[in-house]
Amino acid sequence: MFDKDIYIERRKTLKSKIQTGIILLLGNEYSPMNYADNTYHFRQDSTFLYYFGISEPALAAIIDMDADELILFGNEMSIDDIVWMGRQKTLKEKSEDSGIEKVLPTDKLESYLNRYKYESGDIHFLPPYRPENKIKLANWFNIPFDGLKNAASLKLIRAVVSQRSIKSAEEIVELDKAAATSADIHLMVMQQAKPGMYERELAAKIQKAALASGGNLSYPAILTVRGEILHNHYHANILKAGQMVLNDSGVETALGYAGDLTRTFPVSKKFSSEQKEIYNIVFDAYTNAKNALAPGVRYLDVHLTSCKTLAQGLKDIGLMQGNVDDAVEAGAHAMFFQCGTGHMMGLDVHDMEDLGEQYVGYTDELKKNTMQFGLKSLRLGKELETGYVLTVEPGVYIIPELIDRWKAENKFAEFINYQKLEQFRDFTGIRIEDDFLITENGSRMLGKHLAQSTEEIEAIRAEAY
Amino acid sequence: MFDKDIYIERRKTLKSKIQTGIILLLGNEYSPMNYADNTYHFRQDSTFLYYFGISEPALAAIIDMDADELILFGNEMSIDDIVWMGRQKTLKEKSEDSGIEKVLPTDKLESYLNRYKYESGDIHFLPPYRPENKIKLANWFNIPFDGLKNAASLKLIRAVVSQRSIKSAEEIVELDKAAATSADIHLMVMQQAKPGMYERELAAKIQKAALASGGNLSYPAILTVRGEILHNHYHANILKAGQMVLNDSGVETALGYAGDLTRTFPVSKKFSSEQKEIYNIVFDAYTNAKNALAPGVRYLDVHLTSCKTLAQGLKDIGLMQGNVDDAVEAGAHAMFFQCGTGHMMGLDVHDMEDLGEQYVGYTDELKKNTMQFGLKSLRLGKELETGYVLTVEPGVYIIPELIDRWKAENKFAEFINYQKLEQFRDFTGIRIEDDFLITENGSRMLGKHLAQSTEEIEAIRAEAY
Repeated sequence: MFDKDIYIERRKTLKSKIQTGIILLLGNEYSPMNYADNTYHFRQDSTFLYYFGISEPALAAIIDMDADELILFGNEMSIDDIVWMGRQKTLKEKSEDSGIEKVLPTDKLESYLNRYKYESGDIHFLPPYRPENKIKLANWFNIPFDGLKNAASLKLIRAVVSQRSIKSAEEIVELDKAAATSADIHLMVMQQAKPGMYERELAAKIQKAALASGGNLSYPAILTVRGEILHNHYHANILKAGQMVLNDSGVETALGYAGDLTRTFPVSKKFSSEQKEIYNIVFDAYTNAKNALAPGVRYLDVHLTSCKTLAQGLKDIGLMQGNVDDAVEAGAHAMFFQCGTGHMMGLDVHDMEDLGEQYVGYTDELKKNTMQFGLKSLRLGKELETGYVLTVEPGVYIIPELIDRWKAENKFAEFINYQKLEQFRDFTGIRIEDDFLITENGSRMLGKHLAQSTEEIEAIRAEAY
Repeated sequence: MFDKDIYIERRKTLKSKIQTGIILLLGNEYSPMNYADNTYHFRQDSTFLYYFGISEPALAAIIDMDADELILFGNEMSIDDIVWMGRQKTLKEKSEDSGIEKVLPTDKLESYLNRYKYESGDIHFLPPYRPENKIKLANWFNIPFDGLKNAASLKLIRAVVSQRSIKSAEEIVELDKAAATSADIHLMVMQQAKPGMYERELAAKIQKAALASGGNLSYPAILTVRGEILHNHYHANILKAGQMVLNDSGVETALGYAGDLTRTFPVSKKFSSEQKEIYNIVFDAYTNAKNALAPGVRYLDVHLTSCKTLAQGLKDIGLMQGNVDDAVEAGAHAMFFQCGTGHMMGLDVHDMEDLGEQYVGYTDELKKNTMQFGLKSLRLGKELETGYVLTVEPGVYIIPELIDRWKAENKFAEFINYQKLEQFRDFTGIRIEDDFLITENGSRMLGKHLAQSTEEIEAIRAEAY
């Protein structure tokens, strides 16, 4: 945990934004795997962590602005719990570490809530994403499950987003650590990958290193020779000379802050000329996007810069054609780059995604484009502010199913050279990704330098086997 | 997956036990960590795996005995899914691998269910343990959440338990593999542990090895110098000379079958004389329990054999006193052994725990003792049958909080030498655990031999550093 003054100050700011009624913040519970008591590792809700710092299951907190009190609801351990789980700090002690004075048993929560009527608009809660919390909210407030998202308090969502979006000094220390540890792991993978290995051997090394660092993975690792599959968690392929490995993985620190890096390197000691050609297009897009980062710049424009760089590069090697600006405007580049250039990052790897992308990444004036393939996957579009932390992660992905689909429709034939593209059908994918802090003058990469250029990567691969 | 004939045969047997109405079996969904799309690794429901073998989220199946049809409900991938997740076998293809002829989209399930009334008793489902499935069942059948467990079909529970309890040849192959891989990992840990290491470095090695084997951990690893804490997932201690490491961990195979082993070894190259003394008491209990395993023997009696061996040994060294049989009858040994000697094992490490311990481990005649500390944690009591797979895992755990609690009450003072026990207050804990198949003539240990005696363990530790 951070020092308790930090949590006290965060709650004070939140209260000043909401002012009346009560704020109900739910922690997470253990998630069962194959029966109730065989659970996944516990991950506390990030907003709960942000305001209270206590990583323990089955807690809830009420910030009552009318009564001017803060209550943590949770149960102390019984002797049976101590036998099975060990003596830990009491909940009372953990609460004091967080600056919370009042703790009540969980069964007092419902009667506390009964003092307020949901219909009055005085109860502020966030949209639930865990089914266990959906059940609680539906029961307490008699709201149908499909109505819970809309029943959440927009005022609270906006207040939380505005606070969590701007990272404080102690948060940046954690995010730097997460990125640096992630970079160390990426280097290790680049050094140890060999032809003949299973992908899962490398994925297992990543998991091991994340756990040994005292934290965990911030998301399931993507470690694949099929880099064109954007969220590929299949790890059963064998690495073969000539292929590339795409490693998209990052750690979260013990306090829950995420790192999120991607590197793509050859299984062989060197990239093929074709791989190097496309790698350098992606690297240009990465560089141009990174250089565009600054307060006041719309991330949508950073994304479009990245898309245009990709399209120009792809045109230069004959995979695209026609006017580059028109191609990107129409969305034709999404044949090669189907997703967004980046996203906010913090206590969540996609920061605050549970609160709604419209509120985290866009504004009332700049709505998310939910229609265009490509743009509909851009999680961040709005003007950047000092203190934002985000990723830059352009890529080129050749997806055979997408070629077949679009080619059959003759889609964007003025911009895509389908004949040439057929030669690249089995190219797979390349992504380069780092994490950045928006500073007053531009941006700073978090963590530490990790081999980016083909020369740097080939120098590491030369020593690998 | 196994060959489809196996699944067809299993379903045929199940149908013959239920005969009328419909059986509704729900698969699991992805479980969210900190927002909906950042998920834990997928674990299919074990009963769903048993009857269908398809490890994919958000499926459900209906075995309609009246209409004599089997329908799998689930959605094929969209082009967006393929972009993000990659081309896989279609659901139709996976269904064919499982011998299922009819697949319908998920949104057809509710109307299918509407043909039947829950109140008629014609709809058989199992007690839900995942909150996402509780929401579905509560909505479909208009059952309050706290009534779902009782609304489950006892007939179906009994039918599933009777089938899954007896392991078939192909299941035993998997369970042997799980135990053997787990033993390899235990040996590696015993060889690599050194003073000065963090527990988490070893826990990370275990996780890595499990993933690299192509499976996963079958439960969160317990890797601790505080072995007296029974379900200890804290890994932040540093190993110190003089301490013992308790490693309770096992892998599940790619098909979902569990291994579950425990070894306790000294951080130093040798056990202290005190550690050796108590280790040998636990080893005697293990040996006596193991030797008692046979069809027709009640596991409750195996457990009592183990408890009496522990009590006799503890009496021999002066920690217990009085008549050993009376001490165990009264439950005084539970100062040192607070849990059960073992449990059923299969697709779940505590096999079928979600279906209810009373049905899995006990009978109408032999109810679980839910009052006595110790016995209330014995998950298996009933007569063993050929084909059962279970663990034997006696231990001695010295829990300071329990000493203080019982001593203050002067509890079992005729059986416990509290004065001597104070000298062992910081002893921590020892457990030895292996997995066994009940055979016609007795039992067979699954997997492979893993160092058990103090001599074998010290021989390995001598080479460790």
